[in-house]
Amino acid sequence: MAGETIGFCGLGQMGRPMAANLVAAGFSVRAWNRTRGKAPEGAQECDTPREAARGARIVVSMLADDTAVQSVTLGEGGIVGGLREGGTHVGMSTISPALSQRLHEAHKAARQHFVAAPVFGRPDAAAARKLRIVPGGDEQAVAQCKPLFDALGEGIFPMGTAPQASLAKLCGNFMIASLIESFGEGFALAEKAGIDPMRLSETLSRILFADAPLPKGYANRIAATSFEPAGFALALGLKDISLALRAAEDLRVPLPLASLIRDNLIAALAKARDKWDWGGLASTVREAAGLPARR
Amino acid sequence: MAGETIGFCGLGQMGRPMAANLVAAGFSVRAWNRTRGKAPEGAQECDTPREAARGARIVVSMLADDTAVQSVTLGEGGIVGGLREGGTHVGMSTISPALSQRLHEAHKAARQHFVAAPVFGRPDAAAARKLRIVPGGDEQAVAQCKPLFDALGEGIFPMGTAPQASLAKLCGNFMIASLIESFGEGFALAEKAGIDPMRLSETLSRILFADAPLPKGYANRIAATSFEPAGFALALGLKDISLALRAAEDLRVPLPLASLIRDNLIAALAKARDKWDWGGLASTVREAAGLPARR
Amino acid sequence: MAGETIGFCGLGQMGRPMAANLVAAGFSVRAWNRTRGKAPEGAQECDTPREAARGARIVVSMLADDTAVQSVTLGEGGIVGGLREGGTHVGMSTISPALSQRLHEAHKAARQHFVAAPVFGRPDAAAARKLRIVPGGDEQAVAQCKPLFDALGEGIFPMGTAPQASLAKLCGNFMIASLIESFGEGFALAEKAGIDPMRLSETLSRILFADAPLPKGYANRIAATSFEPAGFALALGLKDISLALRAAEDLRVPLPLASLIRDNLIAALAKARDKWDWGGLASTVREAAGLPARR
Amino acid sequence: MAGETIGFCGLGQMGRPMAANLVAAGFSVRAWNRTRGKAPEGAQECDTPREAARGARIVVSMLADDTAVQSVTLGEGGIVGGLREGGTHVGMSTISPALSQRLHEAHKAARQHFVAAPVFGRPDAAAARKLRIVPGGDEQAVAQCKPLFDALGEGIFPMGTAPQASLAKLCGNFMIASLIESFGEGFALAEKAGIDPMRLSETLSRILFADAPLPKGYANRIAATSFEPAGFALALGLKDISLALRAAEDLRVPLPLASLIRDNLIAALAKARDKWDWGGLASTVREAAGLPARR
Repeated sequence: MAGETIGFCGLGQMGRPMAANLVAAGFSVRAWNRTRGKAPEGAQECDTPREAARGARIVVSMLADDTAVQSVTLGEGGIVGGLREGGTHVGMSTISPALSQRLHEAHKAARQHFVAAPVFGRPDAAAARKLRIVPGGDEQAVAQCKPLFDALGEGIFPMGTAPQASLAKLCGNFMIASLIESFGEGFALAEKAGIDPMRLSETLSRILFADAPLPKGYANRIAATSFEPAGFALALGLKDISLALRAAEDLRVPLPLASLIRDNLIAALAKARDKWDWGGLASTVREAAGLPARR
Repeated sequence: MAGETIGFCGLGQMGRPMAANLVAAGFSVRAWNRTRGKAPEGAQECDTPREAARGARIVVSMLADDTAVQSVTLGEGGIVGGLREGGTHVGMSTISPALSQRLHEAHKAARQHFVAAPVFGRPDAAAARKLRIVPGGDEQAVAQCKPLFDALGEGIFPMGTAPQASLAKLCGNFMIASLIESFGEGFALAEKAGIDPMRLSETLSRILFADAPLPKGYANRIAATSFEPAGFALALGLKDISLALRAAEDLRVPLPLASLIRDNLIAALAKARDKWDWGGLASTVREAAGLPARR
Repeated sequence: MAGETIGFCGLGQMGRPMAANLVAAGFSVRAWNRTRGKAPEGAQECDTPREAARGARIVVSMLADDTAVQSVTLGEGGIVGGLREGGTHVGMSTISPALSQRLHEAHKAARQHFVAAPVFGRPDAAAARKLRIVPGGDEQAVAQCKPLFDALGEGIFPMGTAPQASLAKLCGNFMIASLIESFGEGFALAEKAGIDPMRLSETLSRILFADAPLPKGYANRIAATSFEPAGFALALGLKDISLALRAAEDLRVPLPLASLIRDNLIAALAKARDKWDWGGLASTVREAAGLPARR
Repeated sequence: MAGETIGFCGLGQMGRPMAANLVAAGFSVRAWNRTRGKAPEGAQECDTPREAARGARIVVSMLADDTAVQSVTLGEGGIVGGLREGGTHVGMSTISPALSQRLHEAHKAARQHFVAAPVFGRPDAAAARKLRIVPGGDEQAVAQCKPLFDALGEGIFPMGTAPQASLAKLCGNFMIASLIESFGEGFALAEKAGIDPMRLSETLSRILFADAPLPKGYANRIAATSFEPAGFALALGLKDISLALRAAEDLRVPLPLASLIRDNLIAALAKARDKWDWGGLASTVREAAGLPARR
């Protein structure tokens, strides 16, 4: 598959290193970004998403939110208009299941495929080809993406249809946010009791989580009240939790913990902490307990 | 230290295998239980906690709740009256920091030591000497317990004073309950979207928790809605979360997530699920979403 | 002002009796509804909102939700295209402040006025000219609506700009929902303690609320678990609470009680109680307590 | 009944004006307080509750909390030891249903009656004989208290047994706290939208509550962020909500709104607002929204 042409739309913090990895893996990459000059060396910069999709069997999108994905796909100069029949749009952004379903239908109407393939991992994981990918969509279309996914990450976890994959990603992010809320509350309590939060964090990371990196990383950052720079910004966190709540409303599933997290994220944003890491939702808990947002 | 005499009060699901391990490690064990006939082979059965404490440098208690610990320690025929001067009471039950503090003071007044040493692990871990122990109290007294702890578990994590250790254990249990609530909400949402909950559980256990046994175990049991038999009963879970909330009220720390968990545990108990595993708090979430308590 | 021409869009449960009252008060009413045949006697039925707005100094809209109001105002054949320069669109539906702001801007661009004038009161109050009206918008435009408002209700409570009036209405509905949640929890507790809920309802309505009709009405219906027929349907209640939460997210105000209500409404809808009165959110609380949804 | 001897224990902010009203109504009052010198003119000061109860057919207690009531009733020198056979202890404090039940049993064992008769109304209402009284207990014993209640308040609302009356009072206080939370959230939202909170308060008090004094009073104080001096102190509010939650736990009723209020009260106390009126729980909501605790 090396040498194959791949379109790539969205060259932000995540997309740019991903596109670079595709180049490095030998793909011929046609790249588009809203602002020019972001294409990695070896990729060919294009003027529109449609242009990037042209001639490719697969076009990837990696964008900020539903609005961007919708416009890049269905808007003027969008992917749908450039992708060949039988081609596949691999949407790797975290989007709503509802949009995932709409994209599936739009591509189907154009005799194309839509595969939702959201990823777990921050920009450093993207650069290191360590993303975890959760693809959903037509089985054959997903199968054909394997070389692509292998060039981007280290684990493929198929999860049903496109909207199901989008929802699975939201579930995962909700669980991370739950960890943050839980650590925030537990460590605030411990701190007011005079316990060293770092010691508690190390202890519980070991006992409860066998030192797994993700919970340990959050636990230690929250215990240290180290909320900047952001790995994943608070404002993005609110976006994802709100998407989960909206999907849950559609499916008639109450999510009281997600609601609680949403309120605490909003409280942190009310203090203009948009750029803090979403671990900083613990600042809301701290302040409610009479502690400073950070030590 | 082999051959040393150790008192042991409380021979329930946890205490009995622990006492047996002490016998196996060569300690001379004087054991007491509220109802007779529970002492493991090789231990000497005693009529009262005081009797069990007599002649021992260390006496362990492993009991159900604050009321039991208080009565076994301070009541008629209690430990305080039997333990020698300079001796140490090692309280391994999960109790309130407030009681931990009172026991510390009562033993100090009797020129004895109190070490709170709550444990993480279920009865099978107790039998397999795989408990994680979080001791708190006078440093020297804690240090002298090392041979005891080595015979009972596989990790010692000192955590300040006795009430601090008791609180740390409550924090840990709160974090486990948070996982349960989070998995319960996420998997209910996924199930209503037609996603296979077991597949999602396996996927997120790997991606988020690197397959660490504790979160993976809860995730899989919740995804399978397998709530019986109990490893840790719902009613005990409510006890611990309530202790955490009471300690937090004393320290003036709001814990909205703990409050939410408490309400959901109560809802499960309102349906007489006392004997279910506390993973069964997910049944509350499921029913609120219009799903059956179990599939 | 009698004899003046008024356009009226939306002849549902609320709009129809309101339009009839305008006819009775001597206005010449040009009425439009999505489905024909709803115009009250004496009103002239029109084919489009634009048609209804033609020749009128004031056109009223009374519709189900944001989507309907937006389309009737800005869509093809919409009000903006028919209303004269200097004319006023009086939007009496409960809508989002964000849409209120957009309508203000659109009408302003067309040299027209937009007055948001949401109402408190159910269809019977609409028929009896007992609505309470909370208008917001250009002061002079609001003042000119006085004869209109007098023909529809019995109290005018000006509240700043159009989006502010829309938000004030959402605040009011949120407070009603809070009463419902509060009564639901309190009466469930009382019932499980063997207290007669009706007696408690009568007692607290008197003591706390001086028998004010609104809280007393909800209290008694909830105590009697009388949730049908709906005065205001559960599904509409969820719509309004969700609007409040979205407005609060934009303004960065956490509303934990509104979030709690939202989750409990969703839980009631998960049991297909769409058509129940929103007092029926108490059924969620009852079931969580192990009580039947209704006695 | 004038001239009859009545014992009265507890001469605080509530008890003192109540005892004075009994003197004024012609009762012969034997009064006791923890600290001396509080007896109103015309009352006879006693050394112990038992002394106050001696010779009386009825003895009233009006104390701060469960601990005080328990000790004054059952402790050394307590009421039980002084009251005649067939006499009645009228407990007017707000206490737990569990204690109410224990007192009922203790008095019954001594061939005495216990009537729980908690009151609604602040000290000014106590002075003005405007308390609302919710008595529970043996019907005949309650009936015999009528002259007493008439001298203290303006409404008697019998509510079953003693623990039921105690619980009904807790329900009432929970509903007041719910109003506070609701007003706090609604007005914070309105304020951030530029709405005048006082105007909104006046409007909604009229529309929703027909200007009933209790909700209007709270609404206006919260809109004005006027939290001192306390009519009913925050710390007492937390006591009552915690009692309600504990009773609900015993009865297995989840009360998520009460839990939310409890957390917000704790957050206010974390900032040392113990002496603020419990309307000041709105300060928690305000700060979470990025507003100052008070304007």
